[in-house]
Amino acid sequence: MDSQAFREAATATIDEIITYFDTLNTRNVVSSVEPGYLRKLLPSEAPQEGEPWADIQKDVEAKIMPGITHWSHPGFHAFFPCATSYPSILGELYSSALSGACFNWICSPAVTELETIVLDWLAKTLGLPPCFLSTGPTRGGGVIQGSASEAILTAMVAARDKYLRETTVPAASPLTEEEQEREDAIMIKRSRMVALATTRTHSSARKAALILGVRFRAIRVREEDGYALTKDGLAAALAECKAQGLEPFFLAATLGTTDVCSVDDFAGISEALQGWCAPPGGPGEVWVHVDAAYAGAALVCPEVQAATRIGLVGRFHSFDMNMHKWLLVNFDASCFFVRDREWLVQALSVNQAVYGNKASDGGLVTDYREWQIPLGRRFRSLKIWFVLRSYGVKGLQEYIRRSISMGEAFADALKARSDLFEIVTGPSFALTVFRLAAKEEGASLEERNALTRALYAKVNATGKMWLTSTELDGRFAIRLMTAVRTTEKEHIDMAVKTLVEVAEDVMKG
Amino acid sequence: MDSQAFREAATATIDEIITYFDTLNTRNVVSSVEPGYLRKLLPSEAPQEGEPWADIQKDVEAKIMPGITHWSHPGFHAFFPCATSYPSILGELYSSALSGACFNWICSPAVTELETIVLDWLAKTLGLPPCFLSTGPTRGGGVIQGSASEAILTAMVAARDKYLRETTVPAASPLTEEEQEREDAIMIKRSRMVALATTRTHSSARKAALILGVRFRAIRVREEDGYALTKDGLAAALAECKAQGLEPFFLAATLGTTDVCSVDDFAGISEALQGWCAPPGGPGEVWVHVDAAYAGAALVCPEVQAATRIGLVGRFHSFDMNMHKWLLVNFDASCFFVRDREWLVQALSVNQAVYGNKASDGGLVTDYREWQIPLGRRFRSLKIWFVLRSYGVKGLQEYIRRSISMGEAFADALKARSDLFEIVTGPSFALTVFRLAAKEEGASLEERNALTRALYAKVNATGKMWLTSTELDGRFAIRLMTAVRTTEKEHIDMAVKTLVEVAEDVMKG
Repeated sequence: MDSQAFREAATATIDEIITYFDTLNTRNVVSSVEPGYLRKLLPSEAPQEGEPWADIQKDVEAKIMPGITHWSHPGFHAFFPCATSYPSILGELYSSALSGACFNWICSPAVTELETIVLDWLAKTLGLPPCFLSTGPTRGGGVIQGSASEAILTAMVAARDKYLRETTVPAASPLTEEEQEREDAIMIKRSRMVALATTRTHSSARKAALILGVRFRAIRVREEDGYALTKDGLAAALAECKAQGLEPFFLAATLGTTDVCSVDDFAGISEALQGWCAPPGGPGEVWVHVDAAYAGAALVCPEVQAATRIGLVGRFHSFDMNMHKWLLVNFDASCFFVRDREWLVQALSVNQAVYGNKASDGGLVTDYREWQIPLGRRFRSLKIWFVLRSYGVKGLQEYIRRSISMGEAFADALKARSDLFEIVTGPSFALTVFRLAAKEEGASLEERNALTRALYAKVNATGKMWLTSTELDGRFAIRLMTAVRTTEKEHIDMAVKTLVEVAEDVMKG
Repeated sequence: MDSQAFREAATATIDEIITYFDTLNTRNVVSSVEPGYLRKLLPSEAPQEGEPWADIQKDVEAKIMPGITHWSHPGFHAFFPCATSYPSILGELYSSALSGACFNWICSPAVTELETIVLDWLAKTLGLPPCFLSTGPTRGGGVIQGSASEAILTAMVAARDKYLRETTVPAASPLTEEEQEREDAIMIKRSRMVALATTRTHSSARKAALILGVRFRAIRVREEDGYALTKDGLAAALAECKAQGLEPFFLAATLGTTDVCSVDDFAGISEALQGWCAPPGGPGEVWVHVDAAYAGAALVCPEVQAATRIGLVGRFHSFDMNMHKWLLVNFDASCFFVRDREWLVQALSVNQAVYGNKASDGGLVTDYREWQIPLGRRFRSLKIWFVLRSYGVKGLQEYIRRSISMGEAFADALKARSDLFEIVTGPSFALTVFRLAAKEEGASLEERNALTRALYAKVNATGKMWLTSTELDGRFAIRLMTAVRTTEKEHIDMAVKTLVEVAEDVMKG
C-alpha cells in the first residue's frame, strides 16, 4: 500500500468511524451472533496474493460489525465503561505510525518523558498526595500499564521483593554453597508469605497471587459495612495469619469494587496496620495497593477527593486507576503510581548487555522497562496528553459529574417505584445495584432471585440496553452503570421506562 | 471535539503521517535531546480549559518529534525492528474506535473469533505443526499477547501449574486443617522447582522466573556450538539440578537469540529430555517454550521452515513470535501458541460472578482472559488480518527474503575487507555481528575492544544510522540488522561505505 492508497483508505476509514459514532444508537448494544459465526465467513488460510484494500474494508462492516458489542453505545450499562473519544483515537493514530519498542529512554526520549509528565499532571488532577509525583519528596512516580491486573501484579512482585529484602539476607550470584543455602532460606520464607484482599476485591488480586505462587486470603466483607474492608476485619485477618504462622506482606484495598463500587476504609486499614507486628514504614511492613481502576476517574472532582479522603492513600504504597474506563482514553491506559520508584526497579530490573547505552548506564534517565512486566512498550502517553488537553480539567469534571448525576436520577426513579424495585447498593460512582421488590411478604430468596433473573433476561433481550448482574450473599442483583460518554438523560429515562414495564409484567406473571 | 472537528483533525494527521514516512530519511535516526528536555517545554499541570486541536497538533512536530528515535528509518540497524505498515495503522484506527475490554467472547464475539482464525492462518503460514492450531488434534491454539515477555511468563505459569498438578495432590478451598497441610506441601514443592534457560536466552526468561518466585539456572552456551543449547549441555544441567535436589519444570529454548540470532538444537533438546527422569509426555515432564520473538517471522519462507526443522517444535509445549518485530504489524502483536489450551485455562482461570454469561458458562466459546495475565484486551487481530490480506503470503515472503539477502550482502562486503573487519557471528536472520580485525598479531582483547568501541561510537555519531552492540565472552562486538521495512540495498551500501571509512581511520589513528 503506497502513500496515495493509504490516504484514500484512511479517509474512508475516518468517514466510517464518524458514521459509526453518529448512528451508534440505531444498532443493538450486544452482538447476537452464534458462537463460530465468523469461521463460516472466512477462508481457512491466509491468501497467497495480496488483496486490494477495498475488498478488505468492505468486510469490516459485512463480517466484523455483526460480531461487535458496542461499548460506546448509549445503552451500554454493563460492567464498567471502556472509553474512547476522538482525541484519544488521534493519539493512537500517531502512536501506531511512530511504532517502536520503547523499553529504554534512548529508544525514544519523548515516549518516556511525556509519560512521566502526563502522569504527574494526572496525579495532581486526581488530588493524589505529592509522594506519588515524580518530582515529589519520596522518589515516587507514575507508569502506564496495560491493565489494572498488570498493575496489581507489578505491585505484588515489588512488595514481595521489598519484604524479602527487609527480612532476609539475599543470595548473591554466582551460587556458591553458602549462597545456595541462602537461596533455600528465601524459598522457605516465601512459602510462608500471604497476600490479602477481600471477598469483593477484583479477581486480579487472586490471579496475581496465583502467578507469584504465594498464598492468598480473601477477608469476608459484610453488607452492614457496605461491603467495605474495616479496621476490625483487617485486624482479625492479620491475627489469624499470625496464628497460622503465615506472614502477610501485601493488601489489595479498593476504591470502587467491581460488584457494588464500595470503598474500603482507608483510615481503618491504616489503624489496623499500626497495631501489626511490623508497623507502617518499618521493615517487613504490609504493602498496601489501592485499586481504583474504575472509580479513580471521579477523583478529578474536588468533592470526590474530599468525600473519599484521598489524601490518606499517601500512607500506602501504590495506587492504580484506568483512564481507559471512565476517563475518555481508549484501552489501554492503566495509570499506576508508586510512592518510591526504587521499589519497582529493585524488583524488576534484569540487565542484558545488548540494551546498554550511555544515558541508562549513567543513571540519568528513567527506563520504564524496569517498572513493568514486559520489556517493550507503546507510545501510550500521547493519547492521555491529547485527552487532558482537549477536554481540560473542567471538561473532565463536567463529564464525571454528569455520569454521577444520571446515576442518582436513575436510583431516584427506582426509589419512586419501591413497589417494584429494591436498591441493594448505591448509587455509588454512577453504579446502582438493585433487584425486584418482594412480591409478597415472606417471599423466599429463591423466588425473588428467579423473578429478578426474569426481569434481567427480558430487559437485555430488547437489545436496546445491556445490563450485567452479580450475586451478593446469595441475592441475585442487577447492575446499571451510567458512565458511558454517549449516554444522555433521555437514555436513562428510557431505561427506567423499560425496567418499569418489564417489572410490572414479571410481577404480574 | 465533534464529528466535523475530528474529520479535519484526522485528515491533517493522515497528511502528517504520510509526510513523515516520505521524508523519514532526512531525519537523524536517534534522537539527540538531553535528558529532561520535554519538562522544560511543557506546563507543570494539565490545563483547566480545553484547548483547540490546532494548538495541540502543532506541538507534535515542535515538541515531540525532536524526542523520537525513528524505528522505521532506513538507517535503523539496532536491536531488532519494531514494525509498522499502512495496513497495520488502519487496523489500529478501527480498533481504537471500537474500544472495548474484550475479556469474554460476548464482550465482542468478533474480537475473539477473528483472533482464533488469524492465528490459525499464521500458524499454517509459519509451518507450525498442527498441534498448535485451534482446529488441531490436541486442543491447541493461539492467543495475542502484548510482548514475548508476557508470553514466556504465561507459559511459565502454566508449566508450573501443570507440573504441580501432575506431581502433587492440590489443595481445595475452603482451607480446612487437612487442606492447609496440602497447601504447605505444595509450597515446599514449589521451593524446589527450577526454570532453565541459557546464557544467551533473552532476559525475559529470568524475569519470568523472578516474578514467579522460582529458581532459575542459565546454562552456559559456547562459541564452538554457535551459542546454541546442545543435547550434552542440557543433559549436564539436568543432572546437576538432580544432584542438588532441584526439580526442573521449564526450559526456554530460542529460535534466534537476542545477541547473535543463534538457534538452539531442538532435536538435541528432545533427546536430552528423553533421558530425563520424567520423559516427554509423562507426568512431571519439562515444559519447553520456544521463543522465536524476532526470527520466527522468517518461517513464512518454506526454505527457513526446512532449515530450522520447525516441525520438531511439535514435541514441545508452546511457541511465541512477535509480528510486531519483523512482520509488518505495529507494536503490540506477540503471537503465542500452545499445544493444549487447557494448560492455560487450568492455570489462569479465576472466576468472578459479575463476568458470568450464558455463552461462557455453557463452555461454548473461548474466553481469552483465561489464556493471559490481564483481564481486558484490545482488538489486536484486526491489524494482523489487514496485514496478512494486504501483503498476502507471497508479499511477506518477498519482504523477508529481501531482508535476509541484504544481510548476506552486508556480511559479504565485510568479508571482502577482512583487513578491517572480523565477523563474529552470522549473517543469521538478517543480523551480522562483527568487530574490528586485529591491527597487529598478538593485539590484546582490551586493545581490540577499545578500537571496536571507537568505530562503534564514531559510526553512530554520524546520525545517519544506528547500530547496537553486545559482549560475547568478553569481546565487544557490533550488531547490524537489515530487517526494517524501509531499508533498501542503497542504505546497506552506505552503511558499508561509512564503516570502511571510519574503520580505516580508527586503524590508522
